[in-house]
Amino acid sequence: MIEGRHFRRDWSSGYDVGRKAAAQNLADIAAMGAVPTSIVVGLGIPADLPLAWLDALTDGFGDECAVVGASVAGGDITRCELVVIGVTALGDLGGRAPVTRSGARPGQVVAVAGRLGYSAAGQALLEAGVPVAADELARAVAGHRQPRPPYACGPEAARLGAVAMLDVSDGLLQDLGHVAKASGVRIELDPRALEVAEPVAAAGKELGADPLDWILTGGEDHALAAVFPAQVALPPSWLVVGRVVAGEGVHVAGRAAGPGGWDHFR
Amino acid sequence: MIEGRHFRRDWSSGYDVGRKAAAQNLADIAAMGAVPTSIVVGLGIPADLPLAWLDALTDGFGDECAVVGASVAGGDITRCELVVIGVTALGDLGGRAPVTRSGARPGQVVAVAGRLGYSAAGQALLEAGVPVAADELARAVAGHRQPRPPYACGPEAARLGAVAMLDVSDGLLQDLGHVAKASGVRIELDPRALEVAEPVAAAGKELGADPLDWILTGGEDHALAAVFPAQVALPPSWLVVGRVVAGEGVHVAGRAAGPGGWDHFR
Repeated sequence: MIEGRHFRRDWSSGYDVGRKAAAQNLADIAAMGAVPTSIVVGLGIPADLPLAWLDALTDGFGDECAVVGASVAGGDITRCELVVIGVTALGDLGGRAPVTRSGARPGQVVAVAGRLGYSAAGQALLEAGVPVAADELARAVAGHRQPRPPYACGPEAARLGAVAMLDVSDGLLQDLGHVAKASGVRIELDPRALEVAEPVAAAGKELGADPLDWILTGGEDHALAAVFPAQVALPPSWLVVGRVVAGEGVHVAGRAAGPGGWDHFR
Repeated sequence: MIEGRHFRRDWSSGYDVGRKAAAQNLADIAAMGAVPTSIVVGLGIPADLPLAWLDALTDGFGDECAVVGASVAGGDITRCELVVIGVTALGDLGGRAPVTRSGARPGQVVAVAGRLGYSAAGQALLEAGVPVAADELARAVAGHRQPRPPYACGPEAARLGAVAMLDVSDGLLQDLGHVAKASGVRIELDPRALEVAEPVAAAGKELGADPLDWILTGGEDHALAAVFPAQVALPPSWLVVGRVVAGEGVHVAGRAAGPGGWDHFR
């Protein structure tokens, strides 16, 4: 994570950035079906960075790790002109093979667990300078500052027989595109199946935007998206949002979604 | 490693930087008595970085890993205003406990394995703009660009019963100071026991400098320094250069060495 590119110190506290940097990498571990065990952190910091900001960052690393029972195992620190954070996360597969991106086959179902659209909606609110006293808007902004990946759903999916999985870091369409490409299949999404959470809906209303854009193309919530055999009975944490068919790419409501998203196809 | 701070693209090729970034971290693993198994790399690169430089960097990572039978297991890449490289190295202790910095006790001996002074001498030659056609000078510069840590000596030392160990990344005096502090002891170095390698001696002659300065205070060669019980018969790869006594700090030829090095004590 590079200051000015992946976070802004005026939009996020050191604690927020620490939670987010850890979450992004712990979610990668969960998305392979593993339980995160530790992170190591490489930091570059400017000479004039307030010590309190660095302390808060470190607290954020620790607290996010504590969510999954992991710990900060070590790291290194050096001077840099801007804040640069590199996190490596480690985990335990418990003897199972990792769930990769290449196992999707026609006839299977696509499901998601966790939040979609919060981070993008929150960022849009921050960019627009909207005051976020209102509760639902504040929840979207909080979701941008501190994602809440559904960590436990990763190993759960692996136990249920997930054949492909990843965390949604760049947007549902783009990330499912990786699964489609690696598996040599087409993924068809049904946008009506995607739930629009209250904070995302409220941000859409506030800004006059379609919340579905954020849900389909917004990254950084680190929801999990997985492909399951059709006969698997999914628990309530997983919401079926599409299916796997022969072909390539990702289709939304029957039309191809391009690299730029889906909205220009409507 | 931050561009402009830890390397300069006009002094080191992408391949050099890749070898060095990997070596610095693989040496950390060896210094705990472990065999390195893999690295993961986080990269920040400017939009205008030549692709050939990035390819060479990646080749450097892979070739340095190959020296120890390790591999590049993965990584991530993002845009940044300058080249930023974060490497995490993993290794296998083979069931042994890691060798830390805190096990030194009075009566034990201090030994080093690997090169000392090459990198600092090479950097001094580069800073002075000395043409390095001469063979020995070129070897010092090569040592600055691509350190050669004595990886195998780490697990060897652990098997021999080393009670403290680290790799010399910031200079022998400073790094042994960490051992002295963590162990609650004094380390006495005998400068006459330190070998002055030909390239370091040649650079000293060329620049009118005392090569012992580079050997005692120059970092980045990633030699290993370890403490052994006095009765251990050390193989030729390890050179005894001092002893552990009661007290604190690092003494050279009977006088305390400060944070700035030792030369102002002569």
